[in-house]
Amino acid sequence: MTRNEPIGGNSAAAIAHPNIAFIKYWGNRDPHLRIPLNSSLSMNLGALTTTTRVTYSPDLEVNRFQLNGKDIKGAALARVSDFIDRVRSIAHLEYRAMVISDNNFPTGAGIASSAAAFAALALAASFAAGLHLDEKSLSRLARIGSGSASRSVPGGFVEWQAGETDDNSFAFSIADPEHWELIDCIAIVAEGHKPMGSTQGHALASSSPLQAARLASAPQRLDLCRKAILERDFEAFARVTELDSNLMHAVMMTSTPNLLYWQPATLAIMHQVMEWRQKQGVEVCYTIDAGPNVHVICPVYNQTFITQRLENIPGVKFVLNSPVGGPARLI
Amino acid sequence: MTRNEPIGGNSAAAIAHPNIAFIKYWGNRDPHLRIPLNSSLSMNLGALTTTTRVTYSPDLEVNRFQLNGKDIKGAALARVSDFIDRVRSIAHLEYRAMVISDNNFPTGAGIASSAAAFAALALAASFAAGLHLDEKSLSRLARIGSGSASRSVPGGFVEWQAGETDDNSFAFSIADPEHWELIDCIAIVAEGHKPMGSTQGHALASSSPLQAARLASAPQRLDLCRKAILERDFEAFARVTELDSNLMHAVMMTSTPNLLYWQPATLAIMHQVMEWRQKQGVEVCYTIDAGPNVHVICPVYNQTFITQRLENIPGVKFVLNSPVGGPARLI
Repeated sequence: MTRNEPIGGNSAAAIAHPNIAFIKYWGNRDPHLRIPLNSSLSMNLGALTTTTRVTYSPDLEVNRFQLNGKDIKGAALARVSDFIDRVRSIAHLEYRAMVISDNNFPTGAGIASSAAAFAALALAASFAAGLHLDEKSLSRLARIGSGSASRSVPGGFVEWQAGETDDNSFAFSIADPEHWELIDCIAIVAEGHKPMGSTQGHALASSSPLQAARLASAPQRLDLCRKAILERDFEAFARVTELDSNLMHAVMMTSTPNLLYWQPATLAIMHQVMEWRQKQGVEVCYTIDAGPNVHVICPVYNQTFITQRLENIPGVKFVLNSPVGGPARLI
Repeated sequence: MTRNEPIGGNSAAAIAHPNIAFIKYWGNRDPHLRIPLNSSLSMNLGALTTTTRVTYSPDLEVNRFQLNGKDIKGAALARVSDFIDRVRSIAHLEYRAMVISDNNFPTGAGIASSAAAFAALALAASFAAGLHLDEKSLSRLARIGSGSASRSVPGGFVEWQAGETDDNSFAFSIADPEHWELIDCIAIVAEGHKPMGSTQGHALASSSPLQAARLASAPQRLDLCRKAILERDFEAFARVTELDSNLMHAVMMTSTPNLLYWQPATLAIMHQVMEWRQKQGVEVCYTIDAGPNVHVICPVYNQTFITQRLENIPGVKFVLNSPVGGPARLI
């Protein structure tokens, strides 16, 4: 049966935040369904938002996608269009969709824009199609668009249970945004698109002789990180977060071909953060995604100190600050 | 029985070269005897030399050590003195020793000065004590002073068979210095002593969740590297050498406490070398020891091109060039 007039109107808009992972996702069990090889843990970045409106219409012959006011074609359109087609198939909807999306942060700055994008898209596209998905189903749906998008669906501090199938691979909150007032001071070292995107990168993970060891020890780190967050134990949090980041980059830099995302300024910031914490006793730590920018995490009372000093490190273009953010939501 | 007058005179001088490992040594099976957990492969650096004279004398009440014209005390003296005492014990010699050593390269620049030091010391100290050790025994003896010194005893391209006991852990040549005219262009990023010496660093290797995986895959890399050297296959040599270096640093940066030896300029050089080879087709690769300096390896015909360009990278203080070197020898 095919419905041509979706329940709940044919248009909806949603907002979602990117997230920064403290226990990283790198490598898929199922690349098509984006079922990861290890569970991960993140916080949403409340100051950074993607706003997405999806409108289904009988006047469209193909799905269309506009990002920050520009019509998008090629691989980025195909990825969004495939996602819309999946939602249309679930909702038995013939109408095609216009997707209009805006980020309030620079695209391609390595801030996991695809996580916020597919979390907002999953919510707007499903609601506009008349589907009222619960958080778990929405997280599963978002995951198929971009693995880390599963973590941008729930709010606050979020755990993505790896699972083994489409059914049991989804994310859930372990603590509200208000639980711990952490700030992510994102030191932007390079803008522009990455030389190797995450989707291709995940496929290389298994070529590293170190990936199996990283995976085997990941559950223990996730337990340590969850406990540190729940107990607001910054020192324990810092140790496991930096270790997990280094482990992911160790796998990246030993895959074939190797992925060396760090730039000289990346390393300068890492050394500086370690010195602040280890020699000056400042509560601060770093974590780095698949790019050269450094996410410098600290309690809110250290934000000004850290931000000002980061801005003075040669090679840092600017610093974006964000507190912990809420869930994906309709607007 | 104790001899007080050593056979062969009471003084001898020897010369030895540092070496650069392509398949790295990191982590000991027996830290006291410096029996490593994996076999390694290196080339001697012929342009860099340590010259060491050992003189046993009844006038000395303690072993003494002079390096580059300065009397050395403390931990460095203790390490040399323990080594001399081991030789004295083997030779049943009561006289204590004066050790006078000179490097023609900067000490503490992370050029594995202890390898050349203990190779030259093993030869001079044993010969002056009347011992005429064969290459294998000399390599074993040097190993006890500094693990990588075992590789500075034979000449040219050298394999250190890890072994399991003092008897079967020693190094041997796999090819003469003339076999392949490679140059090590050492880009010096920082002088001065390392924050964490190798002896302490080796002890941390097992705290990394990645060390077991590095060790498990090391024999395969050693086979690939040996074959590439014997066949003078630069592309295969470059791939395995860079991978092995990255694997060692992956272990270092994920140990507890973590060892992040790279500096911003280290990473700038790594990126540059990869670009030269991968985008411009230049035969060149990097390898990095437990320090921030980068050993940039190339065939002799690329030496001028590479050296000039390395000197222009910000953060490179100077470049030391060395061809493949011969064995430790008496002078």
